[in-house]
Amino acid sequence: MRVGWIGLGVMGRPMAGHLLAAGHDVAIWARNPAAEALLANQGYALCASPAELAARSDVVITIVTSSADVEGLAFGSAGLAEGFGPGSVHVDMSTIAPSMARSLGERYAARGLAWVDAPVSGGEAGARNATLAIMAGAEAGVLDRVRPLLLTLGKTLVHVGPPGAGQVAKACNQLVMVAAIEACAEAMRLAAASGVDLAAVRTALLGGSATSRVMEVMGDRMVRRDFAAGIEARLHHKDFGLVLQEAVALGCPLPIAAQVWQQLNALMGLGWGRDDTASLLRVLEAESKGQP
Amino acid sequence: MRVGWIGLGVMGRPMAGHLLAAGHDVAIWARNPAAEALLANQGYALCASPAELAARSDVVITIVTSSADVEGLAFGSAGLAEGFGPGSVHVDMSTIAPSMARSLGERYAARGLAWVDAPVSGGEAGARNATLAIMAGAEAGVLDRVRPLLLTLGKTLVHVGPPGAGQVAKACNQLVMVAAIEACAEAMRLAAASGVDLAAVRTALLGGSATSRVMEVMGDRMVRRDFAAGIEARLHHKDFGLVLQEAVALGCPLPIAAQVWQQLNALMGLGWGRDDTASLLRVLEAESKGQP
Repeated sequence: MRVGWIGLGVMGRPMAGHLLAAGHDVAIWARNPAAEALLANQGYALCASPAELAARSDVVITIVTSSADVEGLAFGSAGLAEGFGPGSVHVDMSTIAPSMARSLGERYAARGLAWVDAPVSGGEAGARNATLAIMAGAEAGVLDRVRPLLLTLGKTLVHVGPPGAGQVAKACNQLVMVAAIEACAEAMRLAAASGVDLAAVRTALLGGSATSRVMEVMGDRMVRRDFAAGIEARLHHKDFGLVLQEAVALGCPLPIAAQVWQQLNALMGLGWGRDDTASLLRVLEAESKGQP
Repeated sequence: MRVGWIGLGVMGRPMAGHLLAAGHDVAIWARNPAAEALLANQGYALCASPAELAARSDVVITIVTSSADVEGLAFGSAGLAEGFGPGSVHVDMSTIAPSMARSLGERYAARGLAWVDAPVSGGEAGARNATLAIMAGAEAGVLDRVRPLLLTLGKTLVHVGPPGAGQVAKACNQLVMVAAIEACAEAMRLAAASGVDLAAVRTALLGGSATSRVMEVMGDRMVRRDFAAGIEARLHHKDFGLVLQEAVALGCPLPIAAQVWQQLNALMGLGWGRDDTASLLRVLEAESKGQP
């Protein structure tokens, strides 16, 4: 399949590599020419603009940072929409506002083009090992056309609903996951303030109803005080902006999501935005003069 | 082993049954004589007071509701401490304040008697299937003496630390678990308000970093709108009182725990205290005129 790829960050680079390894004809366009040059001798074709990339691709996959980035790539000057031939598909794997995903789906549909929002969970390790969980919003027929491609990148693919529904699921995912990280941090802080061994508490909790992937992975980081970024906390801070913006638009109060957002705000204010979100433990310590 | 048992509620009754089935000589004392009479012809010996129970037992296990209940059983009139012979052990599996557990441990130690706080996670199903996670606070030598007995009741037993440490771990467990239930409820509410299928969102989240036992079990209850109690929400409301009381005593701010406590308060105010904690979803619906 002729695939176009935009987004060569910590997630995008290994993901594009899986497509190349699987034998697809992969072309890239990068905002930063240095990144493009670096990748050229690895077997990627290079394009001069998103429009040119779209013109030579059956499917273009984007994984970038913000709603505005994706809109610009799709409908900006020399954007994908200018280049796509009939029946082409834009699969966006970024985490953006559900309302933006719905709107882009409608604008593409009005031109006879197809859209899939397919955000992922699983972080850098999931991208590297092709074990991502993919949450898709798309018309069923469209999703079927790109399903084999997406399953090269992840181990689960759930069709959540029409365009935008994948981003709603991703918003739910981020809400639940970062709230779990905050809850884990509060538990660890309570244990430390009580003079109890954190590793033993984590082990005890992993055996019962409170067990979770977050307790396993982030609890371990907190016990070892390893705050080097897996996924940078500033990205979760951004994601929570989307969750709360959506909640406000819907008149749907989300009390602990709002509180977690403020803890992420504190994390940013304390200068740990490029560290791991396990740093929510350090925010609680700063608030109570705990260690270090 | 001669075991005394106090506490014949939804957890205690199946747990005592496992000890009987394992061939232990189990005696009971119940506040309510009707409960005692009912159990007599199942093979339990009956005692007239906690003191009498203590006098004929190597180990007495209690699983009751409140800190005051446990203190009364231990050091009240005709309490366990009056009856215990040298080297006897009181194992309390209730969820009580860590400070109370520490204090009872000290009072027993002053009399040459032994104490274990061994609260559990896993709920009614865990009690019935002997798959509870047990978190123990005790001197190591004391715990060794009751370890085989406890492993008749659960599948994991973690020695968290000295007396009181088991209750600290349990407080952490409840904090993390009920915060996860609230986060799950907020995600489900956001999905519903967005018009997206809740079951698909749950499936998508189970595949990624947000996965947890709570999402599996309580997410399913929310999707099916099954609010019949596993463990009654009023017990989690009580547990959160302990968590926050401990946090206040330690000067240790726990922002989302505090917020979850208020959601549980709302749940109580709305009259769902004897329903399942999955009712936190209904609290959010009440706050935003969602369904039903």
